[in-house]
Amino acid sequence: MREPSSMTRRTLSKTFGLLGLALAYGFSGHVALAQSALPSWNDTAARQRIIDFVKATTTEGGVGYVAPADRIAVFDNDGTLWTEQPFYIQLGFMLDRVKALASQHPEWKTKEPFKSILDGDLKGIAKGGEMGIVELGTATHAGMTTDQFNKIVTDWFATAKHPKTGKLYTEMTYLPMRELLGYLRSNGFTTYIVSGGGVEFMRPVTAELYGIPPQQVVGSTIATQYAIVGDVPVLHRLPKVDFVDDGPGKPAGINKFIGRKPIFVAGNSDGDYEMLRWVTAAKGPGFAMVIHHTDAEREFAYDRQSSFGKLDKTLDEAERRNWLIVDMKKDWKTVFANE
Amino acid sequence: MREPSSMTRRTLSKTFGLLGLALAYGFSGHVALAQSALPSWNDTAARQRIIDFVKATTTEGGVGYVAPADRIAVFDNDGTLWTEQPFYIQLGFMLDRVKALASQHPEWKTKEPFKSILDGDLKGIAKGGEMGIVELGTATHAGMTTDQFNKIVTDWFATAKHPKTGKLYTEMTYLPMRELLGYLRSNGFTTYIVSGGGVEFMRPVTAELYGIPPQQVVGSTIATQYAIVGDVPVLHRLPKVDFVDDGPGKPAGINKFIGRKPIFVAGNSDGDYEMLRWVTAAKGPGFAMVIHHTDAEREFAYDRQSSFGKLDKTLDEAERRNWLIVDMKKDWKTVFANE
Repeated sequence: MREPSSMTRRTLSKTFGLLGLALAYGFSGHVALAQSALPSWNDTAARQRIIDFVKATTTEGGVGYVAPADRIAVFDNDGTLWTEQPFYIQLGFMLDRVKALASQHPEWKTKEPFKSILDGDLKGIAKGGEMGIVELGTATHAGMTTDQFNKIVTDWFATAKHPKTGKLYTEMTYLPMRELLGYLRSNGFTTYIVSGGGVEFMRPVTAELYGIPPQQVVGSTIATQYAIVGDVPVLHRLPKVDFVDDGPGKPAGINKFIGRKPIFVAGNSDGDYEMLRWVTAAKGPGFAMVIHHTDAEREFAYDRQSSFGKLDKTLDEAERRNWLIVDMKKDWKTVFANE
Repeated sequence: MREPSSMTRRTLSKTFGLLGLALAYGFSGHVALAQSALPSWNDTAARQRIIDFVKATTTEGGVGYVAPADRIAVFDNDGTLWTEQPFYIQLGFMLDRVKALASQHPEWKTKEPFKSILDGDLKGIAKGGEMGIVELGTATHAGMTTDQFNKIVTDWFATAKHPKTGKLYTEMTYLPMRELLGYLRSNGFTTYIVSGGGVEFMRPVTAELYGIPPQQVVGSTIATQYAIVGDVPVLHRLPKVDFVDDGPGKPAGINKFIGRKPIFVAGNSDGDYEMLRWVTAAKGPGFAMVIHHTDAEREFAYDRQSSFGKLDKTLDEAERRNWLIVDMKKDWKTVFANE
């Protein structure tokens, strides 16, 4: 396992007391872990299946045993580790960037999708078609160096708030999933994010939010170009898509960045379908879970079709492929840390 | 740092007793380490500079201290970790693949660069121009699944031999560099390969040769495509270059795959120049070393211009940028493990 940073240790210690510290260091025994593991999960079959799988893969000499180096776990991000409603957090970033940059772009007043954003008309964003969306992405994600973009994202996360709850976006992560990440790591798993979101949009916050360092974040990328400015080498972010880590791109991304087949996968939409298939088709152990957003009161309830993605084919096939459907309302005692 | 697995801990403990265990956990004093470190290096200024840098970055409270999570070290592969003469090992693979596949491709008898390869005319390979080289690469690296390619490469390395020494290619790694990788890891560094070679050509052997797992190998990639064959998901390797991890591509590759700035870099040609600049331009500590092939007797001697790469601009600027030039003949006691 990758050791949690001292910052993560402090955060875990503050949040969970001694248990968190023990989890962070992975010193506790498996039985003790199983009893105290995943405290924000209700004591349902879902929680038990996760614990049984981890127990099987870590029991030396058992039929399901997996060596630590092969204990790779991959997690989708939007809707799996943090909320994706009423829109992806990265879209929230784009909307705020358009407003922040509008004075430098008078042409946006009459050009979609910028016009709709500046008019506060979210539904109008799609008016410019797919090209408009790509233009929105590149206008807000390219044209600066990687260091500059890192700072823009970091600064944004420090204050940006969720439109419905008014909490910081960084407070909109699911506590049960953060516990699951820690539980897996304390059992020798290496945890990765495999998300359709931009790699460099996620990396500035994943270590603090999830204990996942930059090199364990797989996602969509745009092309960069090396240049010397003054005597200093920089990487310019170009307005050009390099890799889309979504749908069939997810197994390709896992192969490209990780180069191993994971044995544990969590997702929440048909954008994760191919990744779910990839992990569970391998010979040997393969555990897949699908987060089902069923809790209108504590989060959002949306089923097969939402404004930002589908959960259709995946639900259809979950039972026969033995994928665990996690019912947020039923299986989670707590959704957010600070409810 | 990546914690050593329990298996590694046990092995070290068995082999070296308490000292090994202390090393595995990084608890031992630096002086003890420094005395036994890098035994295949002569006691020259080069060895001392490496040890001094590691000591500075790992001494808590010191001005040069670097937290373990930021101790990222990146290594070129060809000519830095294993031999690249008389040709890149990956070219050796291509030559053998062309011969193995020739009976299925009667047209190769008259088509460059295949004709020259089948005629044993190495110098003629370039006759087909750049397009010919790309065609050679895709003919030998694409058209199969990722699992199939992994097996082809693994099988090839099991028997393929170096044309000059007659040793297995896997015996052509530099012992001093393998010691350096282990020394850095025992001091909390995470070690990566950042090579112009194909990621999936290197990954099957890097764990065994260098202790570097697949997810820590950055290199050139070709595009893959997800497909279902029968009911099994596979990734097809397409005859299409995805990313070239060479020259200015190396900082881009580091940014894309690792997402952190390394503090230690080793290379041996102008293909590493931008990566050397990238690592040593960062604020804070940055150590760069350049392997200079000066030993015609034990390996090969080539200087500013060789058949497969240049070391020109890099040598010119090494002194003023404080990059360490490692003189193989002078600084290495041993070159290969089994001399």
